[in-house]
Amino acid sequence: MPTAPRRYAIITDGFLTDRRAKTAHGVMQYGRDKVVAVIDSGYAGKTMREVMPRLGCDAPVIASMREALALRPTSLLLGVANQGGFIPPSFREHILVAIDAGLEIVSGLHELLRDDAEFVERAKASGARLWDVRVPPPDIPLYSGAAARVPQVVVLAVGTDCAIGKKTVMIELDRAAREAGERSEFVATGQTGILIAGKGIAVDRVISDFITGAAEQLLLGVSAEADYALVEGQGSIAHPAYAPVTHGLLFGCSPDVLVMCAQAGRRDIEEYGVPLPPLPEFIALHEALLRLVKPARVAAVALNTMDLDDAAARAAITAVEAQTGLPVDDVVRFGGAKLWRAVRAAAAETAKAKENVRA
Amino acid sequence: MPTAPRRYAIITDGFLTDRRAKTAHGVMQYGRDKVVAVIDSGYAGKTMREVMPRLGCDAPVIASMREALALRPTSLLLGVANQGGFIPPSFREHILVAIDAGLEIVSGLHELLRDDAEFVERAKASGARLWDVRVPPPDIPLYSGAAARVPQVVVLAVGTDCAIGKKTVMIELDRAAREAGERSEFVATGQTGILIAGKGIAVDRVISDFITGAAEQLLLGVSAEADYALVEGQGSIAHPAYAPVTHGLLFGCSPDVLVMCAQAGRRDIEEYGVPLPPLPEFIALHEALLRLVKPARVAAVALNTMDLDDAAARAAITAVEAQTGLPVDDVVRFGGAKLWRAVRAAAAETAKAKENVRA
Repeated sequence: MPTAPRRYAIITDGFLTDRRAKTAHGVMQYGRDKVVAVIDSGYAGKTMREVMPRLGCDAPVIASMREALALRPTSLLLGVANQGGFIPPSFREHILVAIDAGLEIVSGLHELLRDDAEFVERAKASGARLWDVRVPPPDIPLYSGAAARVPQVVVLAVGTDCAIGKKTVMIELDRAAREAGERSEFVATGQTGILIAGKGIAVDRVISDFITGAAEQLLLGVSAEADYALVEGQGSIAHPAYAPVTHGLLFGCSPDVLVMCAQAGRRDIEEYGVPLPPLPEFIALHEALLRLVKPARVAAVALNTMDLDDAAARAAITAVEAQTGLPVDDVVRFGGAKLWRAVRAAAAETAKAKENVRA
Repeated sequence: MPTAPRRYAIITDGFLTDRRAKTAHGVMQYGRDKVVAVIDSGYAGKTMREVMPRLGCDAPVIASMREALALRPTSLLLGVANQGGFIPPSFREHILVAIDAGLEIVSGLHELLRDDAEFVERAKASGARLWDVRVPPPDIPLYSGAAARVPQVVVLAVGTDCAIGKKTVMIELDRAAREAGERSEFVATGQTGILIAGKGIAVDRVISDFITGAAEQLLLGVSAEADYALVEGQGSIAHPAYAPVTHGLLFGCSPDVLVMCAQAGRRDIEEYGVPLPPLPEFIALHEALLRLVKPARVAAVALNTMDLDDAAARAAITAVEAQTGLPVDDVVRFGGAKLWRAVRAAAAETAKAKENVRA
């Protein structure tokens, strides 16, 4: 990958304001890398600030990859997530222009760049890197225990189910940490998170024996400048199908602090109808399981209240605080500051924080 | 795979009495499939009963694959596990004879049959199947929940660490069950187990998202004639590297009964120096974790006392019985009858057994 920060051109041609461009939206709103151009002929001539102000992105919208080259992008991101995950045919010519210019091509689609003979051949000629973010790197080593010795305080999101906001919680906590003047890094473990972070491993695609090793490699790759590594969680230890992935992150990350992510009113694993135990019992089980390899505690509950109005959300937060005795908040609705303080306080209890974190 | 039971020719040429032939020895001693010939020129003319009486196998030792064809094998098993996992060059000619005769070739070696162009081409011509048992089948589906509804009582081995005898315990319980007149089937989840059972999936090689699905497929593949499925466990929920594999079996098998495998005197995860909690706490944690998806209990402790003499072994068994309140035995040293009775009694407590198991 580029050694300097990326400068992204993002192609969404025809989908810019569509839900299918959510990958592009996520990177513009939350991404660590600079977006220098958006390629979408329908909005060419405008800026992203004009088209979608909520994203907070000032990149110009440009009609073609060829014109976007003038803005010196390092990478072209395919900014859509369509049904079937194929590479939209209209993208092809733009991708080839970017490959020939030696740009890195970044895709989270099911249809892999590496399986396209023309892309591979032209990339070989120009030296362009093709990065299919769904595919884990080859030769992930076995877990060695080195993750337990990284200098950063490692914070891992765990949760009651898939798709309840573990990624968003950690991105908001990362933002809150920076706003509090701390040096933190979001660590991505799934496809969208990887596109936002600009690096990461889709751990659910790793061979079972190596998932703890993959988590460890992610921690070893955190910037030496960071004092906190905020790891995107996956699944749930209660999920009938995906629990092994969750367990792999729990052990492989060797976390110092856990954040429990839950959704207000949810009482089961949605897809399987498996009822969940009461949250305090579920939290204690995480701590007991993790204690097999290291002690660490759940510092806070991130409550997703998206289905509630503000008053009901506040009532739900108060109820879960009473139930768990922990700080609780909806970081999307109310910001991450409160939960960040809770994480920071729990981190300060750990030997690692005491020794290593710069005051 | 052959629809009728296999008739194995096993090649060990030059290694028959060597530790490197332990794969061959395991299949001869414990395998479900008939061994009709052993190919090893050094002992040609003798029977296995003469060469290694302890294996209880009467197959003749024959100098070549070509001669062995007269005994109508369905399959040729490469019976060695050498350093590096390569296919011994002296096997090559015998393998080609077997392929040309349309036999299935079965190998647990690292060097894959499918990567050998000549084997692949000749197999294509003759219709021979090449089975690399380390490689999971393609297209394993996601976990569906069907494992929870198989008619068999599912018994899963769990344990304190890798390599403490989980496979052997389940094979001995399978034997004890049959001796007690029950219909049971050993379900293999690792390479050596697969060679013994003649089927199975090396679950630690499955992509993380699909390990529960792989376990489920194994249960769905158990013979309708069997009342008990005795599943080989892998790793330990306390193992820093391999716990996700263990968790995958715990959820994916939807077990009705667990058997805890432990080694007398062992207090930690050997490779990582991670101390283990006391056995009663460790057992309770398994039950709490499994309760997230279904209730089931640890019915017995299989204690590996291989480092002790008989008197010390008996004392260790008594001590663990007092500590856990469960039946404890070393099934290798003293046979599986006692623990099988404990499994049978725990199974009888489950709704499934009450409804489904024929008396």
